[in-house]
Amino acid sequence: MGYAMNSKIEKLIKQFAKLPRVGNRAAQRIVLALLQTRDGRAENLASALLDATENVVPCAVCGCLTDKAAGACEFCRDSARANGQLCIVRDMGDVWVLEKSMVFHGRYHIIGGLLSGASGIMPDDLNIATLSTRIKNEKITEIIFALPNTVEGKTTQHYIMSVVGDAGVRFSELASGVPLGGDLDYIDDGTLSLAFGGRREL
Amino acid sequence: MGYAMNSKIEKLIKQFAKLPRVGNRAAQRIVLALLQTRDGRAENLASALLDATENVVPCAVCGCLTDKAAGACEFCRDSARANGQLCIVRDMGDVWVLEKSMVFHGRYHIIGGLLSGASGIMPDDLNIATLSTRIKNEKITEIIFALPNTVEGKTTQHYIMSVVGDAGVRFSELASGVPLGGDLDYIDDGTLSLAFGGRREL
Repeated sequence: MGYAMNSKIEKLIKQFAKLPRVGNRAAQRIVLALLQTRDGRAENLASALLDATENVVPCAVCGCLTDKAAGACEFCRDSARANGQLCIVRDMGDVWVLEKSMVFHGRYHIIGGLLSGASGIMPDDLNIATLSTRIKNEKITEIIFALPNTVEGKTTQHYIMSVVGDAGVRFSELASGVPLGGDLDYIDDGTLSLAFGGRREL
Repeated sequence: MGYAMNSKIEKLIKQFAKLPRVGNRAAQRIVLALLQTRDGRAENLASALLDATENVVPCAVCGCLTDKAAGACEFCRDSARANGQLCIVRDMGDVWVLEKSMVFHGRYHIIGGLLSGASGIMPDDLNIATLSTRIKNEKITEIIFALPNTVEGKTTQHYIMSVVGDAGVRFSELASGVPLGGDLDYIDDGTLSLAFGGRREL
């Protein structure tokens, strides 16, 4: 912005502009709203930030973000979720998406990324090694892969299947196909090909 | 979100979702990014927030947000800007927009809102009373209104003109018309009518 920008304001705008989905214009509007109306929002945001960075940690068992004081996360504490199903996801955002849809009632396992030669993400960078112990301890009977439907997602899925091996557990993955309300005009060839290959008889 | 939301995370998401231009989905993505990658961004944002709320205040003369330690704002300190022109704007955001365009090189006066019967904003709620003193002290010769081109903007403008009265100062306002690159198809009747009324001879 240059001239009119006070250094402390400029610093705050820059911090906001670093956040995902917040551009420079939006960061300016946010900072203006916070500094022009002193309604305590800025202080509340700052204290919520510090509180969360201090007290929110990944669950030692499944990797879900959870309150440090609670020990295990809500899913691992909930015995109703010990139904033998374990859903493997990339990150906490995917857990939220699945929870919102209310389609899954078992437990989660966050691996924290996908294998990728290009980005140099190797098996040791992911939360995979503890899986075999979980399968035994929690009497898992089915592993459901809900990883991204991409080359990296599928590679990671195959790697995990090879690590878990023959542990008496069934593997499944989310169906591929045309999304609900999806117009064929807008669907890529890869998805179409998967939808044809997996066509259901009526 | 319900179930999967840890209370401290939920609290932080709610704080972000209160910000302008940040919806609930964006707030979730922001919080995930901050809590999944611990790169210090969250702490830096919190400290920039506290620093700014503590130290950024409106300039006592013109209302521009400025560093408390600096006394007057950058514009009021800059003698090159004492050119007799005073631009009246609604808020700091409008100052940034004008500064970015580099069309104005005088001083600003932020009134902090617009007269509005509907919202109950009265003259005493706005930073208008000090204007006459500024005109005298800073030898202002022209007042340029850069208020929103709305009923409230024009009402406020007329009120300010009546308050300042015959102080030997010229008044002007930004031109109304078709914006640059504006397609007539997309321009409202009010703007078109103003553009016709203010047409330039060629």
